[in-house]
Amino acid sequence: KSLSRMGSELRCQCISTHSKFIPPRRIQDVKLTQSGPHCQNVEIIATLKDGREVCLEPTAPWVKLIIKAILENPVKKQQYL
Amino acid sequence: KSLSRMGSELRCQCISTHSKFIPPRRIQDVKLTQSGPHCQNVEIIATLKDGREVCLEPTAPWVKLIIKAILENPVKKQQYL
Repeated sequence: KSLSRMGSELRCQCISTHSKFIPPRRIQDVKLTQSGPHCQNVEIIATLKDGREVCLEPTAPWVKLIIKAILENPVKKQQYL
Repeated sequence: KSLSRMGSELRCQCISTHSKFIPPRRIQDVKLTQSGPHCQNVEIIATLKDGREVCLEPTAPWVKLIIKAILENPVKKQQYL
């Protein structure tokens, strides 16, 4: 739920994760950060349409489904093809 | 390859996409933006470890594999469990 902003790139950005399902329509974007020297965890941060940022649990099935849904969203009109 | 920054939230951020494979180890994070009123396309923007931002093709198989790899990255030590 909370997001630590203290030098976010140098540490884990997520202190805890939001466990309840968030409907995709409320999500503007999802950022996946690889684990690395700065943080041992894969971190998934969703920016909601109301501007809030929420840490999601990478192993939660519904999180994987949301990412899949975003990826496989039927593209209405490919602008740059 | 190029990323339009003109009021990025109000329009598509990707003018074109990078077609060549990028090894996951060069990727720091990947942001998936839903299509919506601001842009008809799902947009995937990777931030590389050297700081550059690259638009990836949402339908490209290697892009989906990279996202899957990031998600299923074996978590070394769950810090907040």
